[in-house]
Amino acid sequence: MKSFASDNTAGVHPRIMDALCKASAGHAAPYGDDEYTAEVRRQFMAHLGEDIAVFPVFAGTAANVLALRGMLKPWQAVICSDVAHINVDETGAPESMAGLKLLAMPSCDGKLTPEAIEPALANIGVVHHAQPGVLSITQATEYGTVYTVDEVKALADVAHSNGLLLHMDGARIANAAASLGVSLRQVTRDAGVDVLSFGGTKNGLMFGEVVVVFKPELAEGYNYLRKQYGQLSSKMRFISAQFIELLKDGLWLESATHANAMTAKLATGLKSLSKAKITRPVQGNAVFACLPADAIAALREEYLFNVWDAATNEVRLMTSFATSSEDVEEFIEAIRAACS
Amino acid sequence: MKSFASDNTAGVHPRIMDALCKASAGHAAPYGDDEYTAEVRRQFMAHLGEDIAVFPVFAGTAANVLALRGMLKPWQAVICSDVAHINVDETGAPESMAGLKLLAMPSCDGKLTPEAIEPALANIGVVHHAQPGVLSITQATEYGTVYTVDEVKALADVAHSNGLLLHMDGARIANAAASLGVSLRQVTRDAGVDVLSFGGTKNGLMFGEVVVVFKPELAEGYNYLRKQYGQLSSKMRFISAQFIELLKDGLWLESATHANAMTAKLATGLKSLSKAKITRPVQGNAVFACLPADAIAALREEYLFNVWDAATNEVRLMTSFATSSEDVEEFIEAIRAACS
Amino acid sequence: MKSFASDNTAGVHPRIMDALCKASAGHAAPYGDDEYTAEVRRQFMAHLGEDIAVFPVFAGTAANVLALRGMLKPWQAVICSDVAHINVDETGAPESMAGLKLLAMPSCDGKLTPEAIEPALANIGVVHHAQPGVLSITQATEYGTVYTVDEVKALADVAHSNGLLLHMDGARIANAAASLGVSLRQVTRDAGVDVLSFGGTKNGLMFGEVVVVFKPELAEGYNYLRKQYGQLSSKMRFISAQFIELLKDGLWLESATHANAMTAKLATGLKSLSKAKITRPVQGNAVFACLPADAIAALREEYLFNVWDAATNEVRLMTSFATSSEDVEEFIEAIRAACS
Amino acid sequence: MKSFASDNTAGVHPRIMDALCKASAGHAAPYGDDEYTAEVRRQFMAHLGEDIAVFPVFAGTAANVLALRGMLKPWQAVICSDVAHINVDETGAPESMAGLKLLAMPSCDGKLTPEAIEPALANIGVVHHAQPGVLSITQATEYGTVYTVDEVKALADVAHSNGLLLHMDGARIANAAASLGVSLRQVTRDAGVDVLSFGGTKNGLMFGEVVVVFKPELAEGYNYLRKQYGQLSSKMRFISAQFIELLKDGLWLESATHANAMTAKLATGLKSLSKAKITRPVQGNAVFACLPADAIAALREEYLFNVWDAATNEVRLMTSFATSSEDVEEFIEAIRAACS
Repeated sequence: MKSFASDNTAGVHPRIMDALCKASAGHAAPYGDDEYTAEVRRQFMAHLGEDIAVFPVFAGTAANVLALRGMLKPWQAVICSDVAHINVDETGAPESMAGLKLLAMPSCDGKLTPEAIEPALANIGVVHHAQPGVLSITQATEYGTVYTVDEVKALADVAHSNGLLLHMDGARIANAAASLGVSLRQVTRDAGVDVLSFGGTKNGLMFGEVVVVFKPELAEGYNYLRKQYGQLSSKMRFISAQFIELLKDGLWLESATHANAMTAKLATGLKSLSKAKITRPVQGNAVFACLPADAIAALREEYLFNVWDAATNEVRLMTSFATSSEDVEEFIEAIRAACS
Repeated sequence: MKSFASDNTAGVHPRIMDALCKASAGHAAPYGDDEYTAEVRRQFMAHLGEDIAVFPVFAGTAANVLALRGMLKPWQAVICSDVAHINVDETGAPESMAGLKLLAMPSCDGKLTPEAIEPALANIGVVHHAQPGVLSITQATEYGTVYTVDEVKALADVAHSNGLLLHMDGARIANAAASLGVSLRQVTRDAGVDVLSFGGTKNGLMFGEVVVVFKPELAEGYNYLRKQYGQLSSKMRFISAQFIELLKDGLWLESATHANAMTAKLATGLKSLSKAKITRPVQGNAVFACLPADAIAALREEYLFNVWDAATNEVRLMTSFATSSEDVEEFIEAIRAACS
Repeated sequence: MKSFASDNTAGVHPRIMDALCKASAGHAAPYGDDEYTAEVRRQFMAHLGEDIAVFPVFAGTAANVLALRGMLKPWQAVICSDVAHINVDETGAPESMAGLKLLAMPSCDGKLTPEAIEPALANIGVVHHAQPGVLSITQATEYGTVYTVDEVKALADVAHSNGLLLHMDGARIANAAASLGVSLRQVTRDAGVDVLSFGGTKNGLMFGEVVVVFKPELAEGYNYLRKQYGQLSSKMRFISAQFIELLKDGLWLESATHANAMTAKLATGLKSLSKAKITRPVQGNAVFACLPADAIAALREEYLFNVWDAATNEVRLMTSFATSSEDVEEFIEAIRAACS
Repeated sequence: MKSFASDNTAGVHPRIMDALCKASAGHAAPYGDDEYTAEVRRQFMAHLGEDIAVFPVFAGTAANVLALRGMLKPWQAVICSDVAHINVDETGAPESMAGLKLLAMPSCDGKLTPEAIEPALANIGVVHHAQPGVLSITQATEYGTVYTVDEVKALADVAHSNGLLLHMDGARIANAAASLGVSLRQVTRDAGVDVLSFGGTKNGLMFGEVVVVFKPELAEGYNYLRKQYGQLSSKMRFISAQFIELLKDGLWLESATHANAMTAKLATGLKSLSKAKITRPVQGNAVFACLPADAIAALREEYLFNVWDAATNEVRLMTSFATSSEDVEEFIEAIRAACS
């Protein structure tokens, strides 16, 4: 099957798979008391600075819920965008696992602004209304757009000045940093992010995400919450070994840059087709476009991809480390044929 | 490091690792809509019969919470043993994630009996008391003991006749079946188990457990609950591929039989030492024994293992597929030396 | 203090207080096993028909959460209006107490339509999205508007045909029935409501609401959930005695009709003022109106009332059984003076 | 019906009922912004000292859950006695509403000791085990026994020195203080209690308990949690007015002293009967005693009381402000007759 459905239809990057095979030798202390997990902490500190706490977990939905719960007092709520993954694509996980109320605010192409979240801040201190304790943004967003460093800073400022913390759902943080041409640190910690869900699965890992906590005083709780939420891996070395490989020698950036480039190439191809209309700014590894209904139907016989909005025939096309230039060229030709 | 600490200090069985490498080729539909996950269902059906639902997840704690939540009405509670993993080793996960109350009943060497759970059944229908909806047992138990098929049946009978369902925490179900010399089906479905947490990690997998639901009318809910609890793997083929390899050609049994045999050999060695006293029936892949305090201290310089009860110097020693005969022989000699 | 702030700034209706005093004589079995609670069941059956279950509770937020939890499977969500009390005025109680996700849909003057909830039904069966199990509507709504019986029926039909149940938050159900000129049964059970939060506090009680369950198969769970949610009154006779008095001899209707009439009189007065602009249909016991900012400021020195939207100077004015014609006349004069 | 079943089978103390009637006059700001609630704060400060926060709620189970949740970080657990009301008589409310795990420790006649809770402290800092954040004790206990001030202090010391806070479930705190002959402050705040559930219903109120928070830094959260848990009364004046009456002029002490005296008289009577055997120290307003099975059966035809343990024919007999000397004398005679 040829797939432009998601960056998670790809397999495992060969370097990651190799690291997994090597990590399997011998015994290792379980639950993170192993050398790999110690090393992955050092790697994250090399990228993101000292005084951080690093919590490898299995997957993204749980990473987000864990990240949020650890930032919030028991009665607090989360401001997020109306299209946030935590709001619409996680089957109510934040509410179900952690009792969190989400205050979903209107977004543009997946991005929030200080103005957009203002109404959710107006009820701070009023006992009848859920009290926001965290602002959560997605980088890159669910629409493939990317907050600039300044945009993140502006949101961090409004959050902090209202007593909130800033969470970043970085399932595709590598694609965002690659797109912006900045370091991981510049667009996260230095931009005011307090806790980061650092994605791995969508960037070539078999499984694994990491919750990175930039506020040391919050770290203790994450240790217990991770276990309570079923995210403490007994053979944690296999998550850590993957992230070591991802973070060293720039594999994270190489893979993300490649994925973004493949998307850019795809977007260029689409722009040459009069019947295709790109609907969102193309900044990461996703193109959203409207295609003729019969073209969509024809293409789906050979390709895996998602119809985002059946009413408008808007599709989402994604690339990954595993997408080749030839894949994109063939796909553009297939779209051209389907549209003609 | 030499380890008898747990079956999760081992790496990945070479056949499993090989299966993982092969599974990485090409794209696959995410979230379980892939060929591997279809095949793993067939494998489970081959072992456990038709009309089952199969939910691969990442890890054991979450498998148990998911299994229990899906069996229970919103207000119901769980009867388990006082030493059950869900009660003492999961940091309050069932309470935290799912709001479940556990009614912990006294056990003997980790095993419950119909008599032991009777008091918890006495309050059925009384509004002031938590209403048990599930009886959960661990097989093999936290003390390495194994319920016979008849013992499971007796507990299933008392559960069912009181309107409860029977859950089995089978983190080490393979060791139990190997110990009993029965099929997986005989000691689970045919003995009255309604939902099974089927363990993989402790039997040579990198990660992965499977919730097996024997009551088809319960299956729908598990689909959504798995996602809500952060256990829906996007690249699910990598859990499924491991279980396919584990279940086919008897690898599950071969590994468990080997682990059990290594434990038996270790127990035999311990029995020859006058200062070592085995404290629990040895039936699976764990020996519990009291050793002199100074012997424990000396051994821990070279070996990783758990002191179960510091007050009585009771240690837990575990073996796995990765424990060799030589490992055991060396360890026995080390214990002998430490005890002399 | 003169108050048009809410129907809960009033005290207790004299007949209700008298009933409370009488109910205090002698001992009574606690937790609802008393004669008053048996009688209140009969009263509700007289109004709403046989085969119902009746659960007196302390207050409205808990009544709603209890009502919803008892209707839903553990993984299901609730469709409600964006201005629903459960969504915006309960500080996240449904999420916090019961782990419920609310799918808030756009409303007009507080009312939902079958068209408005369609998008929330589109994701039924898709594992990534919260699965609606209940449609919850408020009658009378948070904007004082009232669904007609046919409007309730239309929503019940779309709910039921999609496998959902219909919940009605009837904190002001008496005002709605009085406004429509129909019986309590016509606008609830006969219109397709499955579970009703029947309000008492806002209609002259000291405290107390009742969850009425029209689907007998759901009743068992409510018994335990009420206790789990801290809503099982030990001296329940004092809730029941109030509802007996409210329901017999038409006190519920007399009080609601009076409150509605006082609101209508107030609305008529407002319409005569050129600087006052009524903003919502006046159908129950609330008027929403925009007043000049300085008039609001002047009025608040003598009167208690709520500014609903500070940006537009929209205020909410409410009446109750305790509002007299003279109170309204004086208030109109005060508004007139403040606006001039 | 004559009742020795519980102190909650009584009605409302006449002075309390009178206070309720008076409180109903006129409008009052809802949700606690009223004069009565301001005054009840002053009353509590007069008894318990400055720098406290006072949260009136409807009922005891919710008071306890609220008290505990507000003291705990999201991942923490509660140490309590195995017979604690929160553990056995609240249908799993702490787990269901707040996700709390209870670590139930063995007690003697309902009382915990520093030694008894030690094992629950041993796992502090170990990620696999629930982390206790609060020690909760009941005063007077579920067996009618009373902790001395020194016993409370000893438990407070062990709690605080291990980083835990101390919660007191004071559903019958008045009976305990009366029994000890100390002030409310001496046996709570001055003995090291951090948060107190102050009972009203069992001491002559219609309904109402108060969560008293002695640590000002915790107070903010309670404000929101009370609403989230459905315990923010809209007509709060009616809870506050009752507590004002209870606390002023010593009504709380008069009623509790009377109830205790009636229990003492009943115990004296029972001691004169050879077939009755008192089973617990009689210190508050409850006697536990074993009676012949046929005597129990005969007595239950006329009297309401609870069989605590059907296996041993142990009954619980309780008195309240509403129990008269004649009631006790008649009951003793009835028991004598039934035993002969």
